[in-house]
Amino acid sequence: MRPAPSSPRAESRPGGRSARVRAAVHQAVRELLSDEADELTIPVIAARAGVHATTVYRRWGSVGDLLADVATSRFSGDIVVPDTGSLREDLERFASDLARDLSDPDTLSLVRAIVGTGGENAGVCRAERQRQLEAMLEREQARGNETPPVERATDALLAPLYYRAVFTDQAPTPEWARTLVSHLLPD
Amino acid sequence: MRPAPSSPRAESRPGGRSARVRAAVHQAVRELLSDEADELTIPVIAARAGVHATTVYRRWGSVGDLLADVATSRFSGDIVVPDTGSLREDLERFASDLARDLSDPDTLSLVRAIVGTGGENAGVCRAERQRQLEAMLEREQARGNETPPVERATDALLAPLYYRAVFTDQAPTPEWARTLVSHLLPD
Repeated sequence: MRPAPSSPRAESRPGGRSARVRAAVHQAVRELLSDEADELTIPVIAARAGVHATTVYRRWGSVGDLLADVATSRFSGDIVVPDTGSLREDLERFASDLARDLSDPDTLSLVRAIVGTGGENAGVCRAERQRQLEAMLEREQARGNETPPVERATDALLAPLYYRAVFTDQAPTPEWARTLVSHLLPD
Repeated sequence: MRPAPSSPRAESRPGGRSARVRAAVHQAVRELLSDEADELTIPVIAARAGVHATTVYRRWGSVGDLLADVATSRFSGDIVVPDTGSLREDLERFASDLARDLSDPDTLSLVRAIVGTGGENAGVCRAERQRQLEAMLEREQARGNETPPVERATDALLAPLYYRAVFTDQAPTPEWARTLVSHLLPD
């Protein structure tokens, strides 16, 4: 992509230069992550995206903030929360769907990279999943049924899924993910 | 630290140049991690350690392998496995000790950095803890008692502890860690 000349008008035009730069930079980050490049730096990202490093520094500030932006667009919006009428079935679908997602090497590279940039950004990877889990529990409560507390459900479902994906060499399989639900909700 | 002239004899002398380089490089990594420097690269580490970058490249190859070496010396050997005669009490001590360890900012920086370098090294952070957990379960079995399977204990204890430390802004407290044991071993 050829960098276009910068001007305040171009920056604010929807779908204009600003959007193209964002798309090119996000694409560069995803490509570099899947290459498992040893060092993910702003000059390397900018070169891959075909934009000036100063553009990237001005807009995102740091690799951590840029990765958080990539992760926010990756991990939000495209997931449908299961609504089968049964909390158990909802959670089984949710957990096995997350297991599949975390088995994807590109997803996993992004999660690992963002954890590596330090503290405050890592939450972006799982914030949407946390909200979905809470929504399913609240819907069950609105039906007049008891549920485990959110903290307990987080410890029993989200934690093992992310832990196994990030810290072990075992893939989180959908079958195993469903057993997590059976421990959270015994018969 | 002033780099000493390199020779095969000096390299192989115990406590000699080789050991001094290792100590200086490990120290540099720990300092840079606690600075929360945006980019942890071999030239930056070498400059901080006062050694040539080529020395670091030759010995460790990549930032990931170097971090794995630092993590191996950090996360092994210095932990006593609880042995109270009661599996529940052993696991409560183990979990609350790990909670305290993962609340330490320096420990957490190292765990996050090593996750960020990619897949195969992240296991180093928790391999020793995994072995300890298995040892406690095996001891209980040797006493003739039933225990949860290792996989279940990992999902119920190690996973929430590492997940909360790495992915959330909640500190893993010893009190909360003990509740994890009560879910794994109901009365």
